[in-house]
Amino acid sequence: MANSEIMKDIVSLAKRRGFIYQGSDIYQGLAGTYDYGPLGVLLKNNIKNSWWQDFVTDREDMYGLDASILMNAKVWQSSGHVAGFSDPLVEDLKTKKRFRADHLLEEAGFPVEGLNLTQMTEIIQSNNIKSPDGNPLSEARQFNMMFETAVGAVDGDISYLRPETAQGIFVNFKNVVDSFHPKLPFGIGQIGKAFRNEITPRDFLFRVREFEQMEVEYFVHPDSWQINFTMWQEVIKVWAGKIGIDLNKLSELEIGEEDRAHYSQRTIDFQFEYPFGVKELFGLAYRGNYDLTKHTEGSGVDLAYLDQETGEKFIPHVIEPSLGVDRAVLSVLVSSYREDDLGGDKRVYLDLPFLVAPIKVAVFPLLKNKPQLIEKGRQVFSDLKSELSFVMWDDNGNIGKRYRRQDEIGTPYCVTIDFDTLEDNTVTVRQRNTGEQKRIAISELLSYIKNN
Amino acid sequence: MANSEIMKDIVSLAKRRGFIYQGSDIYQGLAGTYDYGPLGVLLKNNIKNSWWQDFVTDREDMYGLDASILMNAKVWQSSGHVAGFSDPLVEDLKTKKRFRADHLLEEAGFPVEGLNLTQMTEIIQSNNIKSPDGNPLSEARQFNMMFETAVGAVDGDISYLRPETAQGIFVNFKNVVDSFHPKLPFGIGQIGKAFRNEITPRDFLFRVREFEQMEVEYFVHPDSWQINFTMWQEVIKVWAGKIGIDLNKLSELEIGEEDRAHYSQRTIDFQFEYPFGVKELFGLAYRGNYDLTKHTEGSGVDLAYLDQETGEKFIPHVIEPSLGVDRAVLSVLVSSYREDDLGGDKRVYLDLPFLVAPIKVAVFPLLKNKPQLIEKGRQVFSDLKSELSFVMWDDNGNIGKRYRRQDEIGTPYCVTIDFDTLEDNTVTVRQRNTGEQKRIAISELLSYIKNN
Repeated sequence: MANSEIMKDIVSLAKRRGFIYQGSDIYQGLAGTYDYGPLGVLLKNNIKNSWWQDFVTDREDMYGLDASILMNAKVWQSSGHVAGFSDPLVEDLKTKKRFRADHLLEEAGFPVEGLNLTQMTEIIQSNNIKSPDGNPLSEARQFNMMFETAVGAVDGDISYLRPETAQGIFVNFKNVVDSFHPKLPFGIGQIGKAFRNEITPRDFLFRVREFEQMEVEYFVHPDSWQINFTMWQEVIKVWAGKIGIDLNKLSELEIGEEDRAHYSQRTIDFQFEYPFGVKELFGLAYRGNYDLTKHTEGSGVDLAYLDQETGEKFIPHVIEPSLGVDRAVLSVLVSSYREDDLGGDKRVYLDLPFLVAPIKVAVFPLLKNKPQLIEKGRQVFSDLKSELSFVMWDDNGNIGKRYRRQDEIGTPYCVTIDFDTLEDNTVTVRQRNTGEQKRIAISELLSYIKNN
Repeated sequence: MANSEIMKDIVSLAKRRGFIYQGSDIYQGLAGTYDYGPLGVLLKNNIKNSWWQDFVTDREDMYGLDASILMNAKVWQSSGHVAGFSDPLVEDLKTKKRFRADHLLEEAGFPVEGLNLTQMTEIIQSNNIKSPDGNPLSEARQFNMMFETAVGAVDGDISYLRPETAQGIFVNFKNVVDSFHPKLPFGIGQIGKAFRNEITPRDFLFRVREFEQMEVEYFVHPDSWQINFTMWQEVIKVWAGKIGIDLNKLSELEIGEEDRAHYSQRTIDFQFEYPFGVKELFGLAYRGNYDLTKHTEGSGVDLAYLDQETGEKFIPHVIEPSLGVDRAVLSVLVSSYREDDLGGDKRVYLDLPFLVAPIKVAVFPLLKNKPQLIEKGRQVFSDLKSELSFVMWDDNGNIGKRYRRQDEIGTPYCVTIDFDTLEDNTVTVRQRNTGEQKRIAISELLSYIKNN
């Protein structure tokens, strides 16, 4: 099946089954925004909770944070975003529609890494590259991707929707040190929304205007950045596998010196093989002491760290594992999407790990008009739900159809209550991927599900 | 102790111990924004998770959602927010600073309910009410509280940061119905950020510009709104008690017909006795079919519901339990803040329920320079952490001081490993509120903590 077909099928399944809807859907949408439906919220929360557990809670060197989306504009002056957080834009001279210059060049087959505005304009003009609507294009210019807004009732107080969660961490570095006196190395982790005014949002959840990040800023002594970089590299890979990202589709791209930020001595892009190409999924960057130095200069507050044992005082260096929630959701959906033949019928299923599956078990009474089956079924359902929370009841249609409905949303187990159940307290447990069915005693059900 | 003193103490404890910091702190802040520190995130997440569990997961009539903050501007035209979501503003004619007209009147002792702009201006002028800086005031005018921003690279595409999460639910009503075919009554629940450009943010987390909401829109047949209204009224009260809100400080205010929205036949404000006055905490409103009707008109998409059994087609009516995360956090802090004498010393503690306490247990080795105590202590710590997740290790200073540090952050239990532990595998468990200490076998520790 063609890659564009797979994306279409995933987007369609996501909408039909209540994972992900276009934002502002009934108003013809708002480009670059998506809403998570009932099953999408569950999937997304499972991914976020697993990240929080592995990157923050389970570690004694990590502190959680939840900083505001709106920050004092000076934060973005110090960080360099006001001056430099922009994308190259060209305008269709006829329709006035705007496009990413680098994307148009890429699509026309030109390499774009490292090109400046003048060079992009030259290539566009000398090769007579047109807009997607076939019209001539303007010169390339920079377009700042931060959303601007006025804060307060007094005119002119401008701020921005944060384009990344990272700065909320740097700005709170001293607060956390003062409250907890942590020893280096230690980190601060945060999950939260960020916003980028993308010129051309595209590829479903991949390039959007509103998204969620899971970021760690890990503070180290400058002498120990390599070992901590490698440690986080490993943590990211292990976690990616755990949430169901196909590791065969995951690759690590070492960013060369010429493409790294000047303060970074090492950066890795974790790339994923999406149906629309191999593109960035997660990032891991060594940022030196750039951020805390900039905020020390910008705020006048000393962000140096005093090592109580050695007496050494210095601005810590930073390792930044930066993961996008929405791209994680997208890559999990892409990794788990399957079409096969089962029992002679074509079917679609999501091969989701138990950990992230929105629904862990579905419970079916064989027939909905037999009170004894319903009663027994409800009992099994309640017992499972009190332990696993995410259990679904379905008494609608024939069992085969109910199986297929659960396959499509990635439910690992279906449990059917039939007339034999009333006799011998056993149920049929059906496994998603293989379709295999087993007879299990109700008393063994929970441990069977938990241990498989 | 004076009420203003209590607020000062709570704000100071929240900052010192890493619960809540002023937003953009090192840049002199951004008014009306707060950042949750490591312990604040844990407290807030416990409250949010408990709400999600009780209001969504545990109920079979509820569906979760996570809609975008940025929505198509037409959503806010249909909902009435573009035209009407404003507060009365007056300007200090000398300093040009702006203030809420109704707040200045209230502070000057005038009742303000139901006053229009002309009436406010009249009272200000005839009573010669001055700005807080002592200068004359302008006439009152309306100030829209929605933050505006330009979306996309084409000039003039305005949108807003959502001022409430509710509209994200109404706009997805049809999507959820199409994906899940739920029977009435059913509801959609959501936790998410919302933004209001308050003219004068104040009272810590109470009146802020960026906040988080936990909202349910519960869709019912028009004939059954009363019984469902009462059901949610009860759910809110039970949950408030569970998370540690002092029910003696909670009261219900029936909003009179003259102050209700025209489409609402009943609205209750759950009020809380904050140190700065009795003010709104949660809300419960019967909204009729106003919202879905407005969005049907505005979008041209039919949001009527077809009852498959009766064949009746109608726009469902809505019950809206609306709870603020930050106000919940604030009222839990206010409810739990205690000062007492223990063993002759003045102490401060937070009487938080186990459910919401950021740290459930702290583990102390008696001395940090005795390897056997450390080794044994780490074992106890790991065992507890694998079960309870939120366990803290502290080997710093004398035990008395360590107790006080945990008291201040509301940790229900402290466990001390001493030399007797090495002999008989028992530990000292100390209870937060009473200071009572008991000797417990390590093998019994977890069940002791869970069952107390």
